[in-house]
Amino acid sequence: MIYLDNAATTQLDEKCLDVFREYSINSYFNPSALYRKAMESGNAIKKARNVIARSLGVKGEEIIFTASGSEGDNIALLCSLRAKSGKIIVGSSEHSAVYNCALELKLRGYDVVFAPCDKYGRADLEKLSQLLDEKVVLVSIMHVCNETGALNDLLAISNMIKAKSPRALFHSDGVQAYGKIPVNLRSLGVDLYTVSAHKIHAPKGIGALYCKSGTFLKTFVFGGGQENGVRSATENVPSIMAFADVVERNFGKIQENYDKVKGLRDHLYNRLIETFDNLKINTDMQNSSPYVLSFALNSARGEVLVHCLEDKGVIVGTGSACSAKKSTKRIPLALGIQDDFSQGMLRVSFCEKNTIEEVDAFIDALKVSLQELIKYQNKSVGKNDCILTRLKLR
Amino acid sequence: MIYLDNAATTQLDEKCLDVFREYSINSYFNPSALYRKAMESGNAIKKARNVIARSLGVKGEEIIFTASGSEGDNIALLCSLRAKSGKIIVGSSEHSAVYNCALELKLRGYDVVFAPCDKYGRADLEKLSQLLDEKVVLVSIMHVCNETGALNDLLAISNMIKAKSPRALFHSDGVQAYGKIPVNLRSLGVDLYTVSAHKIHAPKGIGALYCKSGTFLKTFVFGGGQENGVRSATENVPSIMAFADVVERNFGKIQENYDKVKGLRDHLYNRLIETFDNLKINTDMQNSSPYVLSFALNSARGEVLVHCLEDKGVIVGTGSACSAKKSTKRIPLALGIQDDFSQGMLRVSFCEKNTIEEVDAFIDALKVSLQELIKYQNKSVGKNDCILTRLKLR
Repeated sequence: MIYLDNAATTQLDEKCLDVFREYSINSYFNPSALYRKAMESGNAIKKARNVIARSLGVKGEEIIFTASGSEGDNIALLCSLRAKSGKIIVGSSEHSAVYNCALELKLRGYDVVFAPCDKYGRADLEKLSQLLDEKVVLVSIMHVCNETGALNDLLAISNMIKAKSPRALFHSDGVQAYGKIPVNLRSLGVDLYTVSAHKIHAPKGIGALYCKSGTFLKTFVFGGGQENGVRSATENVPSIMAFADVVERNFGKIQENYDKVKGLRDHLYNRLIETFDNLKINTDMQNSSPYVLSFALNSARGEVLVHCLEDKGVIVGTGSACSAKKSTKRIPLALGIQDDFSQGMLRVSFCEKNTIEEVDAFIDALKVSLQELIKYQNKSVGKNDCILTRLKLR
Repeated sequence: MIYLDNAATTQLDEKCLDVFREYSINSYFNPSALYRKAMESGNAIKKARNVIARSLGVKGEEIIFTASGSEGDNIALLCSLRAKSGKIIVGSSEHSAVYNCALELKLRGYDVVFAPCDKYGRADLEKLSQLLDEKVVLVSIMHVCNETGALNDLLAISNMIKAKSPRALFHSDGVQAYGKIPVNLRSLGVDLYTVSAHKIHAPKGIGALYCKSGTFLKTFVFGGGQENGVRSATENVPSIMAFADVVERNFGKIQENYDKVKGLRDHLYNRLIETFDNLKINTDMQNSSPYVLSFALNSARGEVLVHCLEDKGVIVGTGSACSAKKSTKRIPLALGIQDDFSQGMLRVSFCEKNTIEEVDAFIDALKVSLQELIKYQNKSVGKNDCILTRLKLR
């Protein structure tokens, strides 16, 4: 099987299972208890916090462990506001965790404005600048777009915010950036930044939120006061430690992996445009994370293609898994993708273990899938004109 | 090492690591994606949901997976209320996850009343009955008290609620009951019931909330709409499956384990009262879960004893781990424990793997610890009168 849906989730790095096991079977103590063994668990978490912090260029006490990227986004948007009113700006191509929090904030009486993005899913800086004013209390713009890989210039955005909206907090969903592109939060000027473990071969059910020193956060989960009072619950020590283990072992290789994956993505791009006609590439090849390549065909529904491809041993997505089952057209609309293409979106997302051979196999499988669909459509409608994306005559 | 703090957390059941591994390394797909492999992950979760449901005597669609018992309690208390005002009754000996949600609801304008408990931590039914009226919208009384093991009669309480407060929802925190005493929620008449995996040898970072069909729940985590829209996030498939695996293998043994643990607890009780003078037993030996025995000494601080005992290879707690580090006297106050004893509380909590020999070793370690402390106190204050709990002359 060829797995090219790594933006949805990744295979666990097997090595971290030893760490998971150690903190489940041997050092399984509740860090909130008073005895030394419990304190050792607490100290282990502290070390893990420092590992995550270092990987982001920040301090350990600025890291809150969460149960998911979605929870991190929710804490950032729903718990950071002191003011009970004000303007909130959220990117229109954000992940549903951010987008739906913004809708909730609107219901709570905030003036929520969705900032337009360009056709690649990147925030339009000029339009964003026009939206910024002194009433803004929070801005949330993702680092890397989960749908297209588009890279937002967080430093430019944070400078704009500081200049025009000095009261505003700046949150960025970094779930698709973390571990894939170098991130130094201190130099990017963000106040809140969300990461998730399962997108980088670490366990599901664990993530982290960076919260800049001095930033106010209300309680999200009430209880024993863990995670600095923001998120109570017995700490998930095994998953925290496995997360930190993966980060520690792999974060030295970000550039090396980036270069490798960029080679894969560029090869995929070249193969796509040499093989297929009337194809719409949604990813900006110049200024994106190479881990995602999104494109649209206007001849077949993405969902149908996904199934055809799976029959041939290749797994890709249609876009964000979290919105895959919804019949919403929010993302195609935000990207300005017209109707004939919006149903045919495919998202290929890599990890560093993918190979050129896998990309070629994907192209072959896509070719055969389209041929099958063309045959099927010809039979059923007897009409060639509806087949818009087709193989080039070569 | 002898571990007698199983109410804080338990050692993972090693066998469930195979399941965790399978859903991390092989079937690691995001259940929200569209392809068949993803749907298989979704179907696996559905089966797990049915396993948890069966263990509680309810239907699969009534189970929401959470990241913790605390989160389950938070969803039950903070997301179940349609009315923006009304009376809420919460037990005074509840776990901090429920108690602190109640304080939050008070801040949000609800009329929150804490129902008194008896000296064993059990809700006082007569006083509770006096508090119930037509204004009540929510009642939260735990099934088994995490501090003392006291067993609340949920059926009697739900009947009282139905008679006197027909609008009220009834939530019960079942974290210390689940897997330890037989639970059939349908016959107990509760609307919401919280359980946690790591208290029964299943992974940390996973739990479940029973929510009776037709009960309204607001969204707690916004995003992709997982868990019926209540708690969005990529499903933690490996932990969910490991949780269900532990439940499936062990829930046939609840009565057998109960009988064994009751033997341990009764032996501990007998050894305590034959060995020590002036000791206060906080656990009702007639009507409690046998998994917890709480007692108080008035001669030494619980924290000091915990450290002395750990030096001798025995781990016990002072009470709920989640409140261990707080200097609050909420629980001793709720139980009416006087000052000279309230500092000396110890909580011994069992699992089915503990043995009579371990109980005897604990008694020996406690004897030696008290002798050491008496020596130390005699030396430092030169005064015998302050030593109130001591070994019996035998």
